[in-house]
Formats: sequence, C-alpha cells, structure tokens
Amino acid sequence: MNKKIPVLEIFGPTIQGEGMVIGQKTMFVRTSGCDYRCVWCDSAFTWDGSAKDDIRMLTAEQIWSELLELGGNSFKHVTISGGNPALLQSISYLVELLHDNGVKVALETQGSKWKDWMKAIDDLTLSPKPPSSTMKTDFAMLDSIISKLEMNKISLKVVVFNDEDLLYAKKVHQRYPNVPFFVQVGNDDIETTSTADLREHLFVKYEWLIEKVMKDEEMNFVRVLPQLHTYIWGNKRGV
Amino acid sequence: MNKKIPVLEIFGPTIQGEGMVIGQKTMFVRTSGCDYRCVWCDSAFTWDGSAKDDIRMLTAEQIWSELLELGGNSFKHVTISGGNPALLQSISYLVELLHDNGVKVALETQGSKWKDWMKAIDDLTLSPKPPSSTMKTDFAMLDSIISKLEMNKISLKVVVFNDEDLLYAKKVHQRYPNVPFFVQVGNDDIETTSTADLREHLFVKYEWLIEKVMKDEEMNFVRVLPQLHTYIWGNKRGV
Ligand code: SF4
Ligand code: SF4
Repeated sequence: MNKKIPVLEIFGPTIQGEGMVIGQKTMFVRTSGCDYRCVWCDSAFTWDGSAKDDIRMLTAEQIWSELLELGGNSFKHVTISGGNPALLQSISYLVELLHDNGVKVALETQGSKWKDWMKAIDDLTLSPKPPSSTMKTDFAMLDSIISKLEMNKISLKVVVFNDEDLLYAKKVHQRYPNVPFFVQVGNDDIETTSTADLREHLFVKYEWLIEKVMKDEEMNFVRVLPQLHTYIWGNKRGV
Repeated sequence: MNKKIPVLEIFGPTIQGEGMVIGQKTMFVRTSGCDYRCVWCDSAFTWDGSAKDDIRMLTAEQIWSELLELGGNSFKHVTISGGNPALLQSISYLVELLHDNGVKVALETQGSKWKDWMKAIDDLTLSPKPPSSTMKTDFAMLDSIISKLEMNKISLKVVVFNDEDLLYAKKVHQRYPNVPFFVQVGNDDIETTSTADLREHLFVKYEWLIEKVMKDEEMNFVRVLPQLHTYIWGNKRGV
C-alpha cells in the first residue's frame, strides 16, 4: 500500500473559517483528488488538473516536518481537507503521527467513501452536497458511515445556495437528527478579487439563510454559519 | 424566595452570534441587573437605570408563554443573558421548565457568583472581564465555579480590546487549560448606527486579533471568533 499522500497545500497557522470548530487555530493540509465534480467547487484545482504540477507525494513524516517548519510551536490542531481526503488510505499514517505529537485532527469529506481512520478523527465534518452541486448523495453510504462514528466527534454540514438546497439540508437533518447539524452560506462568487464586494454580497445571502431557517419548524437544532475566511480574506488561497 | 425573574427583553428566534454555540438558532431572554460596571458594556441598559421602566417581574411560566407566542414551534434552544443572570436564584425555575419542554438552555455570566442551577445549563459561557473593562476578576470564585462543572458543557470566553486584554486572556486560558477557550473581538463602537462602517472596522480588529493569536505559542487550543450579530445587524437591539 502506498504510504504517501498527494499534497497540494500546507499552510497556517490560521483560523478554521467554518463548521463545527469555527474559529479554531489550525494548520491546513490539502490533499488532491476528488470523486465529485461540484459545479461551484471552490477547490477545483485539487481535481481539475490545473494544479497537477504542484502535487507532491509526501510521507506523513515529511508533512509533519513542513508543518513544524511553518507553525513551529504555535499549533496543536491540524485540518485535513481536499478534494476528498477519504479517497486516501494513507491518511491513517498522518493522523497517527499527529496524535503521537499531541495534535488534534479535523477532517472534511463529503461522505461518499468510508475509511477506518475516520474513527480516529477528532472533528470530522461530513458535508453531503446539495442539488445545486449537480452531485447525487449516496445515502446508503452516508448511513453506514454515520452508524460507525461517535456523535460527539462528528457533524454534518450542508452548503446552501438556494431553496432547493435548503430542502435537501432539511432532509439530511431529519435523517440524522442526533448529529450536530450546520448549514453554511454558499459562496457563489469564487472569482471576484474584491473582498469588500464579496463581503457585502455574502452578508445578504447569510441574512437570507438565517431568515429561512429561523422560520422553519423542522430546522430547530441547527447552526447557521458563514465561511469566516471568505469574509476576511475573500477568495485568496492559502490563508 | 422570589420565584419571579426581572426580564428586560424576550426575542427571537435568531442566531446566537458568539461563543461556543455560535450560529445556533435560539430565543433570547435578557434579565436585568449586574454586579459589574464594565466601561464598554454593550448592555448597560440592564443595570444603569435607563431601561428601568421596561423591567417586568415574570414567572417562568409567563416567560415560557411569551417564548411560545414569539417563536411558536420554531425553537428548541433558549439563551439566557443579562446583565448577570447568576444574581438570580429564580433562574432555576425557568431552566427546569425549559428542560421539561425539551428545550436546551444556554447562559452567559462573568463568573462572579455561583448558583446551583449552573450545573443544569447545557451551554454555559463563563466570560471573565479583561482589564479594559476596569473590573477585577475574582479568580478564587472562578476556580470554585469551574471545579463544580462538566468540561463538555462549559466554555470560557474573553473579550479582547487591546494587548493587555490579550495577556489577561492568556492567563485565564493557562489557568484552565481543559476548558474550551474562546477569544472574541471587542466592539469598541457601540454607538454607531452605520452597520457597514462598524463591519469594516470590526473586520480590521478581528484580523488583528487573529494575527496575534496565530503567532502565540501559548494560545494553541484557542478559538478566535467575531460577534456575528454585530456584523449582520450592527448595534441594533432585539435581533
Ligand atoms: S466534493 Fe468538495 S472538493 Fe469535491 S468537487 Fe465537491 S466541493 Fe469540490
Ligand atoms: S458583566 Fe456584562 S452585563 Fe455586566 S457590566 Fe460587564 S459587560 Fe455589562
């Protein structure tokens, strides 16, 4: 089995801008490759070939040294994102090494694949994709993943762009009522370089989503969050 | 013992804009009275006499009917804030009634007083005040409060306005390393009515705080958050 991990970005320390540990000081390791093709993917460079020359095959040890080089003693939390890191068996080595060094590990995946190392993740975000992505959710797979994990270490997060997505979010929440549930405003302008414009635009969308959820009797144990990093740094990569 | 609670505001559903359950759909009950006089208090009307004619002495049952009238079936979470609700023995009746109705309860207090009902709160935020408030923390009291509570139901939150506050935050975090710890950008312009200006101003402060914490080796298991509601609604009350 290949012990190496295809890595596209290592950066930090910065804050986790979204989801269950929003605001947490963390380092990021972004892996390449995804089994999905969401139309609004904000990290399409992980799978569309545009950054294929930047992919490095690294061992867990090599990733750890780079993390130390960048973050020194200023971190105790690492977030693994993608693409879909759940495509990679080799993530298990990285998780183990991080834990051995007293570092907590968060990871985000859409929930299309199971890996045994998921049980070891401290903050696992499952983010099934709504209709606007054009992807289809494999609910049997999601059922099976969720049944294997502890409720206090996972969360579900659905990005919402429109009313149809919100209906989907509700369906997901109702299917797994005991899993902490987050809805997040979709960033529908991943091209703009004006952070101020993007910020104003996203606040309007955020208010829209809040209003919808507040009125909805089937969305009570729900947390509605923005992606903080896009409000602060816009569409910049590596912050 | 007085079973009534001095109430200044009941509103919602809206999102919790800060702290450990940031983004959570919730109703708010704001009690009057505080043993502190923070110079930058953003709810000074709860103790400075300016809203004393609005204070209503309500039983838990009366509060519950108002919550139902406002929120219907669209809530399962209530946040009790102040002032300092920990001045009031009678909060216990409200917490019990909310729990009987399947509603979770969050509460925020500066940690200057102990009440037995604190053990029953689902999300308890202890927010000791930094030097810029001009208040002095009673650490013996805070030690005693924290020793009685379960780590997974509480958090510490320190509002930070300047470098001295940040030093204080660090001291608090180091004293209670096992308590989930949040730092929050202080809103130093509670008068402006321009939400857009406030937003831009607070983003600059938020970036400053993020940068400080990111570099600090003694602030690793820390979450850095804004007050979302001030970014969305500015200094408006009751949203
Ligand atoms: S699952 Fe995530 S990384 Fe993959 S295409 Fe969709 S948004 Fe992009
Ligand atoms: S403890 Fe809270 S309510 Fe009391 S004066 Fe300070 S900020 Fe205001």
